[in-house]
Amino acid sequence: MPPKLTLYRRNGSCSMVSHILLTELAIPFTSIQMAPGPHGYEAADKSFTHAEYVRDMHPSGYVPALSVDGEVITENPAILRYIANLAPDRKLLGATAMQNAKVDEWLNWLSGSLHGNGFGAYWRPARFSADEGAHISIQAKGFQNVLSCFDRIDQRVDGEHAVGEELTVVDVYLHTFYRWGHMIGVDMGQYPRYGGVARKVEKLESVKRIMAEEGEKLLFSDET
Amino acid sequence: MPPKLTLYRRNGSCSMVSHILLTELAIPFTSIQMAPGPHGYEAADKSFTHAEYVRDMHPSGYVPALSVDGEVITENPAILRYIANLAPDRKLLGATAMQNAKVDEWLNWLSGSLHGNGFGAYWRPARFSADEGAHISIQAKGFQNVLSCFDRIDQRVDGEHAVGEELTVVDVYLHTFYRWGHMIGVDMGQYPRYGGVARKVEKLESVKRIMAEEGEKLLFSDET
Repeated sequence: MPPKLTLYRRNGSCSMVSHILLTELAIPFTSIQMAPGPHGYEAADKSFTHAEYVRDMHPSGYVPALSVDGEVITENPAILRYIANLAPDRKLLGATAMQNAKVDEWLNWLSGSLHGNGFGAYWRPARFSADEGAHISIQAKGFQNVLSCFDRIDQRVDGEHAVGEELTVVDVYLHTFYRWGHMIGVDMGQYPRYGGVARKVEKLESVKRIMAEEGEKLLFSDET
Repeated sequence: MPPKLTLYRRNGSCSMVSHILLTELAIPFTSIQMAPGPHGYEAADKSFTHAEYVRDMHPSGYVPALSVDGEVITENPAILRYIANLAPDRKLLGATAMQNAKVDEWLNWLSGSLHGNGFGAYWRPARFSADEGAHISIQAKGFQNVLSCFDRIDQRVDGEHAVGEELTVVDVYLHTFYRWGHMIGVDMGQYPRYGGVARKVEKLESVKRIMAEEGEKLLFSDET
């Protein structure tokens, strides 16, 4: 019997990667939409508070969280790996031991260096200093960290895929950060190879469908 | 034919976890000791500079890096997973799909939240602000982040293991952060369950051997 999955997610956030992946793999799941409340993420329909979410689901109060038959997995890379392993024939974690390792390397680096030290510092400087006077310089450094990561991504990808010759979870994760780059005003045209990967991902029906469902505009909608 | 492995590491750093794991699993490897130079990590024996290390091995210039038949894996969790997978019968990534996911969750959280936002901000505030005037408050928040993570670790472990009933790579990773806690002056006695895990890890012959080799004092040497 397949596990009963519930994804706690917020529209447009990094939980979109898991949302896409479950859809792409046609895995049945329940989706719980979260929204920022006065104290942090709570149920968008107000059915539970932030405090209840922290107590019952995610000790850090973030999204995504994935409940599997009542046991909860947190941390985006762990969730993505768990979901991808439900359909091993699709090889979304790579096809060889070295490709698996490269996928792991990407997931950890994107989660820690790009999301944590980049967007995290830019959007949430309070994570790094209680002194509001320090926040502007932390945000500036966060923005710079984002650009450094984008440079490195553009050097590392071939315009098709991040790892090997086929789609992996890394490509879908990269698409979200490409969208976020646009959102914070980075000229993404300066990263053509990275753009090639994002374009490829956005051609997937699962991606178009979830972007529409989460209210996100397509990035490459002006192309045929 | 087994892969030819070379571990780039620094004494006492988070690369000790990989060093221990290779030793515990009796996997043959070459060890390259790094040391801080004027521009970042370089070979301790001066055989290559930081710039050469960044060019040839690790684009971020950090440790650890693991060369596998000439192809390099970076990011600690990716390296630990790769090494553990060389001896799958030991089940050091957990024994079930859910345990695998919990190991992944721990690895990403320890690497991102405890190491990155905690010790990273405390030891390397320049990662988060170019303004030196902001560094004191960033270090204070980093220290606080470390304590929050230690609290959560102590709540989550049972004094024996982090995941399931057997040793996983998470326990060995936790031991390093326990040592670092001591190093920055945290009273680790306030985390007895966490201490139980660290004590258990330190009883492994591989751990004692690598700690001696890296010049680290045992944490529980006064116990019988």
